[in-house]
Amino acid sequence: MPKLDLSTIPAKTGSGYPGKLSDGFEGRSVQPLGDAGGLTQYGVNLVRLAPGAASSLRHYHMQQDEFVMVTKGVCTLIDDAGTHQLGVGDCATFPAGDANGHHLVNKTDAPAAFLVVGTRTKTETGYYSDIDMMVTFDEAGFSFTRKDGSPLTADQTGEDT
Amino acid sequence: MPKLDLSTIPAKTGSGYPGKLSDGFEGRSVQPLGDAGGLTQYGVNLVRLAPGAASSLRHYHMQQDEFVMVTKGVCTLIDDAGTHQLGVGDCATFPAGDANGHHLVNKTDAPAAFLVVGTRTKTETGYYSDIDMMVTFDEAGFSFTRKDGSPLTADQTGEDT
Repeated sequence: MPKLDLSTIPAKTGSGYPGKLSDGFEGRSVQPLGDAGGLTQYGVNLVRLAPGAASSLRHYHMQQDEFVMVTKGVCTLIDDAGTHQLGVGDCATFPAGDANGHHLVNKTDAPAAFLVVGTRTKTETGYYSDIDMMVTFDEAGFSFTRKDGSPLTADQTGEDT
Repeated sequence: MPKLDLSTIPAKTGSGYPGKLSDGFEGRSVQPLGDAGGLTQYGVNLVRLAPGAASSLRHYHMQQDEFVMVTKGVCTLIDDAGTHQLGVGDCATFPAGDANGHHLVNKTDAPAAFLVVGTRTKTETGYYSDIDMMVTFDEAGFSFTRKDGSPLTADQTGEDT
């Protein structure tokens, strides 16, 4: 039936960033609601942030529109313009190609959560605003590199390259 | 800035259904959050339902994925399988092409609201489950007809054809 039973949808904790770049994301968990409900044209995720956790490294998408609505607690949106408080029901949009790196951080001592929607495209490029990293996606999967396409360095990831 | 100020986004009340088919939608209002925030790849609307109001005539989409999350009050989801209560935070999905006509109705005596996401496609066809009507969308705009493509009748719309 179309109604989702959120208690049955597994949450994934952490991030997919390489090496030590994923440090600090233990307090982030993601439930893929859209996938669970059979949607394919966009992703809809419910992201929970423990106190101190961030949604992602600050980034922007080249091809994919992004929408967020806070559903629990208070999240701090950090983008190129500074910080903005988002309480329950507050929304933000990040149009594809707008080079305004953003993420949400739970700076409170209580749990927070938000709904995020992102278009599904066959290929995608995203840029991380605060570090020399980009992510590309195509039929081969995700690939993290420096912004010039060269491999990330051991200094960046803490891993041998 | 990406954070939306919902107080500045005009809400549209009623429906676009022809003639008397729009009767009863006075208690429905829609705020186009995604449009207001510059998104183009999918629509994100905040729909408010006064007591007794419905989101739409019961329908399904052929090309567009649909997602809903209740954000206020209680909505009753009515689809081919019957009725399902959706409280705040409850979600439902309607994958493109799934011929399961659905709508949300506020059967309570308090206001209700939900967020709805729908893909933007260049063309679209939707079917209404309880009446002989379909809607098509293309570069010429929206067109409501009977399911065989013939014009709606005066009996259906209350208007001269």
